[in-house]
Amino acid sequence: MSEVEKRLQAAGLAVPEPAGAVGAYVPAVRTGNLVFISGQGPVRGGQVVYAGKVGAELTLEEGAEAARLCALNLLAALRGEIGDLDRVSRVVKIVGWVNSAPGFDRQPQVLNAASEMLITAFGERGRHARAAVGANELPLGFAVEIEGVFEVSG
Amino acid sequence: MSEVEKRLQAAGLAVPEPAGAVGAYVPAVRTGNLVFISGQGPVRGGQVVYAGKVGAELTLEEGAEAARLCALNLLAALRGEIGDLDRVSRVVKIVGWVNSAPGFDRQPQVLNAASEMLITAFGERGRHARAAVGANELPLGFAVEIEGVFEVSG
Amino acid sequence: MSEVEKRLQAAGLAVPEPAGAVGAYVPAVRTGNLVFISGQGPVRGGQVVYAGKVGAELTLEEGAEAARLCALNLLAALRGEIGDLDRVSRVVKIVGWVNSAPGFDRQPQVLNAASEMLITAFGERGRHARAAVGANELPLGFAVEIEGVFEVSG
Repeated sequence: MSEVEKRLQAAGLAVPEPAGAVGAYVPAVRTGNLVFISGQGPVRGGQVVYAGKVGAELTLEEGAEAARLCALNLLAALRGEIGDLDRVSRVVKIVGWVNSAPGFDRQPQVLNAASEMLITAFGERGRHARAAVGANELPLGFAVEIEGVFEVSG
Repeated sequence: MSEVEKRLQAAGLAVPEPAGAVGAYVPAVRTGNLVFISGQGPVRGGQVVYAGKVGAELTLEEGAEAARLCALNLLAALRGEIGDLDRVSRVVKIVGWVNSAPGFDRQPQVLNAASEMLITAFGERGRHARAAVGANELPLGFAVEIEGVFEVSG
Repeated sequence: MSEVEKRLQAAGLAVPEPAGAVGAYVPAVRTGNLVFISGQGPVRGGQVVYAGKVGAELTLEEGAEAARLCALNLLAALRGEIGDLDRVSRVVKIVGWVNSAPGFDRQPQVLNAASEMLITAFGERGRHARAAVGANELPLGFAVEIEGVFEVSG
């Protein structure tokens, strides 16, 4: 088990099996030292766990749990591409879309759960750039969707 | 004609002339081996062909045709930058925004038409990472907008 | 003062102090010759200056001012990372989300104010790829949010 996954385990978290792509694309593409990861939803075991609009059907706390699950799925896709998460030299950037009820403007608080998990996993290398935005609709009703760019060594 | 365009032609598709930028920016920027392409709408010959919300004014099938046209416009912008589409070594990532009616959550099915065209054009090199999201509004009423990152050789 | 900032000063503009991150992330991450900047809102001195939906609470002109302020905050974050804006060899890409009232589809005109400022600042090196999209909600009610990718030398 990678050091990254040991740190997550100590925090009660686990990188799931890759969720697979919901369409005609692939979970991850490496170009040079960068790996671009496809948008991930709050899916576990092939099921959407958090669906609906944050600020209406879902609370902020549920949105945050959804964001963390999306970010764990980013790591699942990344591990599928590079084999060992300890090869990550930097989390570069994530973009997070929050399925937002009218008037809901706390997307950063939702995404913080994803960002904090990445810092738990990677320490200083986990500190990343981020954009948090709202969306009126997301695939399969996802409460949150997150894509990411990672730098790997070697 | 590039091999890429021959494959598209065999599928009844053609890369259009570049649509041009709707504003103070450029269609494409190359940095190192990566080319970043500006967001493209479903425009042909200077006219918006598919406008409105998918799931309301437009069907899923029309949304898919819009997505394919956006992706052809990505290739037009890319060809304008690098000259020859056979120099593409990998389609890295696309982000697709679907102008979504309330309750429409089939953005992946819309975007699949873009993704499948890219695989038709580039084969294995065309398999890309992707994020598909909804938007409440898009420029000029675009039904779909897609941006892309491509890796080129040499 | 950098040449970039002198050009902005001649246009009556100034790069502000960095706005800081609204959450568990960092304003900028460099990887190789690329710097990814976090999504910036229309914030000045810690206050959101333009909040609400463009096309309803805010006019197109106010939206454009918001976009320009977002882009100045991009430069603030970039300067904080690389020290000297004259080290920028190319503005690669921006993505701009416009908090859009129903039926508002002039996101490109809003974003043009950001794009034009970047060209004022960097000249030919400032010509960038761009995606302009609508959002139904943005953090803290931001009228506009912009993220960016810059290429630096050395």
